[in-house]
Amino acid sequence: MTTRQDCDVLDQEDPLRELKHQFDLPTGTIYLDGNSLGVLPRATLGRVQEVIQKEWGQDLIKSWNTAGWIDLPSRIGDKIARLVGAAPGELIVADSTSLNLYKVLSAAIGISQQLSPERKLMVSERSNFPTDLYIAESLARQHGWTLKLVDHVDEIPAALNAELGVLMLTEVNYRTGYRHDMRALTAATHAAGALVIWDLAHSAGAVPVDLKGANADFAIGCGYKYLNGGPGAPAFVWAHPRHAERFWQPLSGWLGHAAPFQFTTDYQPAAGIKRYICGTPAMLSLAALECGVDTVLAAEPFGGMAALRKKSIALTELFIELAEARCAKLGVRLASPRDETKRGSQVCLSLDAPLHEAGYAVIQALIARGVIGDFRAGDPSRLAEVPHILRFGFTPLYIGFTDVFDAVEHLHQVLSLKEWQRPEFQKQGAVT
Amino acid sequence: MTTRQDCDVLDQEDPLRELKHQFDLPTGTIYLDGNSLGVLPRATLGRVQEVIQKEWGQDLIKSWNTAGWIDLPSRIGDKIARLVGAAPGELIVADSTSLNLYKVLSAAIGISQQLSPERKLMVSERSNFPTDLYIAESLARQHGWTLKLVDHVDEIPAALNAELGVLMLTEVNYRTGYRHDMRALTAATHAAGALVIWDLAHSAGAVPVDLKGANADFAIGCGYKYLNGGPGAPAFVWAHPRHAERFWQPLSGWLGHAAPFQFTTDYQPAAGIKRYICGTPAMLSLAALECGVDTVLAAEPFGGMAALRKKSIALTELFIELAEARCAKLGVRLASPRDETKRGSQVCLSLDAPLHEAGYAVIQALIARGVIGDFRAGDPSRLAEVPHILRFGFTPLYIGFTDVFDAVEHLHQVLSLKEWQRPEFQKQGAVT
Repeated sequence: MTTRQDCDVLDQEDPLRELKHQFDLPTGTIYLDGNSLGVLPRATLGRVQEVIQKEWGQDLIKSWNTAGWIDLPSRIGDKIARLVGAAPGELIVADSTSLNLYKVLSAAIGISQQLSPERKLMVSERSNFPTDLYIAESLARQHGWTLKLVDHVDEIPAALNAELGVLMLTEVNYRTGYRHDMRALTAATHAAGALVIWDLAHSAGAVPVDLKGANADFAIGCGYKYLNGGPGAPAFVWAHPRHAERFWQPLSGWLGHAAPFQFTTDYQPAAGIKRYICGTPAMLSLAALECGVDTVLAAEPFGGMAALRKKSIALTELFIELAEARCAKLGVRLASPRDETKRGSQVCLSLDAPLHEAGYAVIQALIARGVIGDFRAGDPSRLAEVPHILRFGFTPLYIGFTDVFDAVEHLHQVLSLKEWQRPEFQKQGAVT
Repeated sequence: MTTRQDCDVLDQEDPLRELKHQFDLPTGTIYLDGNSLGVLPRATLGRVQEVIQKEWGQDLIKSWNTAGWIDLPSRIGDKIARLVGAAPGELIVADSTSLNLYKVLSAAIGISQQLSPERKLMVSERSNFPTDLYIAESLARQHGWTLKLVDHVDEIPAALNAELGVLMLTEVNYRTGYRHDMRALTAATHAAGALVIWDLAHSAGAVPVDLKGANADFAIGCGYKYLNGGPGAPAFVWAHPRHAERFWQPLSGWLGHAAPFQFTTDYQPAAGIKRYICGTPAMLSLAALECGVDTVLAAEPFGGMAALRKKSIALTELFIELAEARCAKLGVRLASPRDETKRGSQVCLSLDAPLHEAGYAVIQALIARGVIGDFRAGDPSRLAEVPHILRFGFTPLYIGFTDVFDAVEHLHQVLSLKEWQRPEFQKQGAVT
């Protein structure tokens, strides 16, 4: 079994180890929740101060030109494009993931109706992140389409049939960390005559993504997880160039207009992806997002996303090895795919009976010890398939091998000392 | 004619004069563009630093509970509600003005279709802010409705007929500063059996608004103009309680769900106005918005919006008096309503021939002198009715009477010295 000394050596030999110094990590904390909210880059505070004091405070409206505010959604978009296999000018930052899904799903439905008006089915997974399902439900209702949710990944191939208009998947599942094969599923969807939308919320900055190589149709993603953009950071949206100008997305705000400062009364969408911008972007949050994206781009001299992925796999493999070796007898079971190619940058554990319902308290006890993960409740009607989970994200930019060792040590103690039984660790609070 | 000494006395006697110290105003600047982007409150930097360093940097995801992030859209919404005649719990902060219009216009169309399916007409003004028209155009196309744009305010009464489903107006016109009679038009629209949406982009924080008193149906507004929320600050949305739960607005993101942290697969909208939230809000920008709203609420001990309005009228009346007395012979003409009850907190001027095309250069020359206003191009096909304008906003929180005097002095000099003819003041830049 890997020892803490082995982990020390792994950290010393880690070519990415210096990247950690880009962040202000809270002291005494092992933060395994970067898949929910990435940590604070050191550069962010200074940059946001500059936007507040100089660009807004001193230069005021001039900053739309002089500070390049008007170009920021494209400038950051071009940076994110480098992380997800898109070309410059193809991806922009705008609004939230939910809103960007509304735009691209509207576009995909519209294009599908032009190509194959008889197709009125969209398919996703019941385990997809709820906001994706809620937006899909809204658009299905509007357009008279059916939203079909599959319970297992294995059901997807059969769903790629002559009725399908749009397949909408999150590449890496927010609960289990299961990672789809984007290239194969995109090809199979196209072979079935349908379009595919990829939500990269748990992919961008976490796993190498090659949207153009996979020939995907549309993609969206989140700025505040692995991109370290800050709480509620703006999201991003990409359309394959073959689709970008095929459709007038319905959230037709003025900054997506071809000539916003001509103030014309008729809407004419901007060329390319810029038509997916809507209203005026939240500039402070946008500036912070750029600092976060830069922390991921800082890995480029060391091998970029491929190097981050290599370390991420090493971290998650180590966590699985140690958690199983030390905690299996205490009721811990792996709830993420064992096959590294089918796993994102997170690992989920579940607890066997009689501990199964203790997951929330175990996470609270870990947090009290400075190990931040999170709890996601299972489906009460089918806990065998969708168990309560303890979710741990491993962001290779700032997590090291000794962090992994220590996190498992804490988990072992929480369980062996039954620390989770303390009253203060039982359920409370609005956000779990 | 009012002298600069008179203005000094007016400033000394101004009961609101201390409110100016809430802001970090750029030195050597008379900022008459708060109707485009409000100035920086002194409190904002410290508050955003706290969110970045402590709430995000140290407390990370815990801040959703411990720092009250989850409640921020409602908390700030309740504050804005005090400025626009709404009750606590009726108004929330979310997304952008464009997106909030999409939500409430979808709701108004949906409710109209339930009540009077034969009505398929929405009416607005050709001079409304373009993003409002673009969103209306998108929804008209989706629902098979007609969007009719009137050219003159006088045409609105005739448009309130048995075909009308929804009237959508911006209370204070972004170009001319013309202010509608919200109460009378709302009553007339209801008498015609239709619904009305008010865009308060140039009203909230600028003029007293009484949404409940006027019995309005829906309202939206902007955070970065008179509310001083910072560039691209989140916007707000209000629905009269009789409508709030009548419709599932289509941008059905997870934070508008009745129980977002239960992660259910089916969408169930939250009670009341919270269903108008969509995705995760941009927290840094939201925190800054609260500081801006607080600067307006700081006027409450001095009489609140009524006192601000009284000063705003005094400022705009003074500007009109001086501009006409000193610059009429140089070609300056009032392009805003002379009747103070029909005017918001801004004054627009146009230039007679042969100076008519010089408006952009005049504004640039004023900016070079530290007087920040802006230029809005007219409609080339009917310049007599929609002329090029020089636009000046007067925010009573931080503009004084000597500022007004000095601004007119600068305008006089720019025109009399023909300073605007210099090459560096001719048109350039993406954002005018």
